[in-house]
Amino acid sequence: MSHTYEYARPALTTDCVVFGLDEEDLKVLLIERALAPHKGEWALPGGFVRVGESPDDSALRELNEETGLSKVYLEQLYTYGDPGRDPREHVVTVAYYALVNLIEHPPRSDTDAAKAEWFSLEDLPPLAFDHGEILKFAVERLRGKLRYQPIGFELLPPKFTLGELQWLYERILEQKLDKRNFRKKVLSFKLLKETGQFQKDVSHRAAQLYRFDRKRYQALAKQGFSFEL
Amino acid sequence: MSHTYEYARPALTTDCVVFGLDEEDLKVLLIERALAPHKGEWALPGGFVRVGESPDDSALRELNEETGLSKVYLEQLYTYGDPGRDPREHVVTVAYYALVNLIEHPPRSDTDAAKAEWFSLEDLPPLAFDHGEILKFAVERLRGKLRYQPIGFELLPPKFTLGELQWLYERILEQKLDKRNFRKKVLSFKLLKETGQFQKDVSHRAAQLYRFDRKRYQALAKQGFSFEL
Repeated sequence: MSHTYEYARPALTTDCVVFGLDEEDLKVLLIERALAPHKGEWALPGGFVRVGESPDDSALRELNEETGLSKVYLEQLYTYGDPGRDPREHVVTVAYYALVNLIEHPPRSDTDAAKAEWFSLEDLPPLAFDHGEILKFAVERLRGKLRYQPIGFELLPPKFTLGELQWLYERILEQKLDKRNFRKKVLSFKLLKETGQFQKDVSHRAAQLYRFDRKRYQALAKQGFSFEL
Repeated sequence: MSHTYEYARPALTTDCVVFGLDEEDLKVLLIERALAPHKGEWALPGGFVRVGESPDDSALRELNEETGLSKVYLEQLYTYGDPGRDPREHVVTVAYYALVNLIEHPPRSDTDAAKAEWFSLEDLPPLAFDHGEILKFAVERLRGKLRYQPIGFELLPPKFTLGELQWLYERILEQKLDKRNFRKKVLSFKLLKETGQFQKDVSHRAAQLYRFDRKRYQALAKQGFSFEL
């Protein structure tokens, strides 16, 4: 069933940069392409937008089909449309990014993706198409966002220590932060709630567990703040 | 000359939110649609992306064709792709925004736009399609940007007073700013250079004219800062 239009149209796709944090470092989810072009190369999960399906819905569907991930909160990153970015034809792609708790999201491969895997940002394979550029921009956006919006809700378990939160910031910013300043600053936003519970089974003194104040988190995500480091 | 594809494709367009500042207030450039749908209604300038043409180039071309503007620095805003946003069919649009010095950019109408006109943000007509939503988001982005990146280079004449810069910030933020704090803050970024020249033909004491340090401006635009108000 082919479709005919009066004027030629670029093809439209979506691509997703999914960041996850495990106990080692910040990782990104890639798929090994099972089909040409760039067969056998690593790429961002994504695919063609269907008529009647919003790009947002398309991105979620493709992500689920290719990696098994669902209920992921995607944010639009940027739309890439250079005519030469795909060897097949002119393909415009709407890129998204997402943060997930990697431990709760083991990837599973499916359909046209041969294999889905988490890669450390420190040790990436070459990426197909312009996906290297898209990933680089997503990392920049993530770092920028950290400075004026709260991040962590999606990457950390529901209860976490201030040390774990600092560790997350240090992994994303790739810089060591002063413990005292970090705590003072983070607590000043009144974003965290003490749970009254403490770490278990640790060899050092057990640290208190916090959780995010969801309402305050959403308000700050909207209104923004300034996290000077 | 029609074009046939194996799978149906959404149509792809661009739309531009062009902000301009004159002596009264912040304005946006709209065109009156000469064709259906929404014939006779006001809309953002824009049109269909051609195969082989990047969305960026398409936006510039359409803006020029419809309003006569050229050499405008467009920044991508967001891509809107809800299937119901255009009554004709599923149309995905890449939205851009730009800042121009309105006095140097009188609009001129052309091709499929009946008429191009600047409207005060305070006094807007109803907009076609989802253009009202797009414009609202562009205003939010502009306000947000003001807090962590320098803005003004594009909106002000090459030489300007601190009063004019403050006036610009007040117009965009829609709030009155404290004169002393504003000056102290703005000068602290080392973004402005004294020209040694002063206003002419003013009834009050002539204020010094400044210009932006272009290098510093670009560095701050990239790296960002925090303009707490």
